[in-house]
Amino acid sequence: MWAALAGGVGGAKLARGLMALTPVNIADLRIIVNTGDDFTLHGLHISPDIDTVLYTLGGIANPQTGWGIAGDTTKVLDQLTTLGEDPWFWLGDRDLATHLLRTRALSAGDGLAKVTADLARRLGIPAWVRIMPMSDDVVSTEIQTPDGWLPFQEYFVRRRHADPVSDVRFAGLARARPLPAALEAMRSAEVVVFCPSNPIVSIGPILALPGMRDALAHRQAGRRRIAVSPIIQGQALKGPADRMLEGLGYEVSALGVARLYVGLVDDFVLDSADADLAPAVAQLGMRPHVLPTIMTDAAASLALAQAIAQVVQA
Amino acid sequence: MWAALAGGVGGAKLARGLMALTPVNIADLRIIVNTGDDFTLHGLHISPDIDTVLYTLGGIANPQTGWGIAGDTTKVLDQLTTLGEDPWFWLGDRDLATHLLRTRALSAGDGLAKVTADLARRLGIPAWVRIMPMSDDVVSTEIQTPDGWLPFQEYFVRRRHADPVSDVRFAGLARARPLPAALEAMRSAEVVVFCPSNPIVSIGPILALPGMRDALAHRQAGRRRIAVSPIIQGQALKGPADRMLEGLGYEVSALGVARLYVGLVDDFVLDSADADLAPAVAQLGMRPHVLPTIMTDAAASLALAQAIAQVVQA
Repeated sequence: MWAALAGGVGGAKLARGLMALTPVNIADLRIIVNTGDDFTLHGLHISPDIDTVLYTLGGIANPQTGWGIAGDTTKVLDQLTTLGEDPWFWLGDRDLATHLLRTRALSAGDGLAKVTADLARRLGIPAWVRIMPMSDDVVSTEIQTPDGWLPFQEYFVRRRHADPVSDVRFAGLARARPLPAALEAMRSAEVVVFCPSNPIVSIGPILALPGMRDALAHRQAGRRRIAVSPIIQGQALKGPADRMLEGLGYEVSALGVARLYVGLVDDFVLDSADADLAPAVAQLGMRPHVLPTIMTDAAASLALAQAIAQVVQA
Repeated sequence: MWAALAGGVGGAKLARGLMALTPVNIADLRIIVNTGDDFTLHGLHISPDIDTVLYTLGGIANPQTGWGIAGDTTKVLDQLTTLGEDPWFWLGDRDLATHLLRTRALSAGDGLAKVTADLARRLGIPAWVRIMPMSDDVVSTEIQTPDGWLPFQEYFVRRRHADPVSDVRFAGLARARPLPAALEAMRSAEVVVFCPSNPIVSIGPILALPGMRDALAHRQAGRRRIAVSPIIQGQALKGPADRMLEGLGYEVSALGVARLYVGLVDDFVLDSADADLAPAVAQLGMRPHVLPTIMTDAAASLALAQAIAQVVQA
């Protein structure tokens, strides 16, 4: 069994590649997804990272944006705007169907894990790929800016991640428990993959859940834990990871990311453009691997997943 | 102040005509709308009759169906269907915006009356036309058929009102109170108009609320209560009113409707095609008025409203 830790677009792209290795090369793939970005809009429970993973693995993601559904329309959002609502958050019509089903099921008392598994089934994702939230409990990422603490989507979407970030916190963490299946995967997976997602607000909340770091530290023969850098040549491919690292005082490079993962991973994948950082990564006690990591299409996702499989089997 | 009692399409059409007489001829128009058909779908609170009145008075109703929004699409419904949901109830995309705003506001603790007034404002309906639910409480119309008691929309939409109807009941009535503004309108309106809506399941629930019949019986100088028959030549223009009357043992004619309103109205409007029923209506103690009542367009709605205004001012 393999476990993959994922946020949104970058995580979903690598997860898509890993899915392509199932069930032959990977018999059982568990994708543990960040839910710190979840929020409520127009009474609907929205799980942006889970949706991105669901749509990408379900083959319906918008290839231009990486999130949302290909060819989706915004009839409902347009009417909400006509009725006087502020259209600050993009809501596709087909996308809304997901939010409606999720919100209905949560209201009926189902947990987010059950709801997510049900949506994956409806999207035709195979049974041996289990997409799961990091927790059934609510953990809400908040961002400290010069204007104070902001809910994540307020910072990320409404204010277009333009504010300097001085701190990040995860509200609700004290009362939250990781999903048992996620904790178990973290503890017993032969391979744990840190997808190229934001280390602070995508991988960060998953690792912050009580027990997750201990589970990850569990030693077993042949177990490999491998991270892929979301930072290439000092820049995030997507999103504010670079500015966030800078604001929090970390080095804005793949090496800076590797330092955040010291003691957590055995292997670290650098993009080919960052080959010069390999010796410094090795000095952190990780095996560096230099690979093409930019996943422009499904073939590139598969190629990176295959390269990772070769690394961990070597 | 005038009060109008309305269900869906027929009621909305006459309400539109009455609105056209405001604020000059009618300074203050209160439209009391049936909510016995309200139900929850995909977690959304849907008020079909209120929506039909809102859309008709807001000038956005689909002129072909009389309900829904003109030119609306079903992107969300199509995706829900793709995801395995049964698309038994039509859900337009623009329509959904209404349901989302209503559900969100109700969840936040607002009453249906406040939510309805807010939606009317957003649709640009003038302040002197107050569309209001009959109650802020839940009253649910149920239909007895050979297959047992059915929720109204189950009977009406899912089973296409094809079942014989042997009884009708309003669940929740014992705990429900009429909306104070509706009760007040019923008691003190100079003119009370029973729109050409189904007497059993549209006007019926409004009158069944405690205190409504007493308020309607309140006598004041010059006060006129006038009903328009929804049955023409023994048939309902729309919906199952004819078969419902038959199933419940009433005469299926405008006269049958008039008999249901004995003691409640002073004047009764028959369609021109039913002029021969005028003497029998007069024998019930009402003034019969023979008028063209088929409201094919806004001009026809206005003409009927003007004719009613002439009747009550005579």
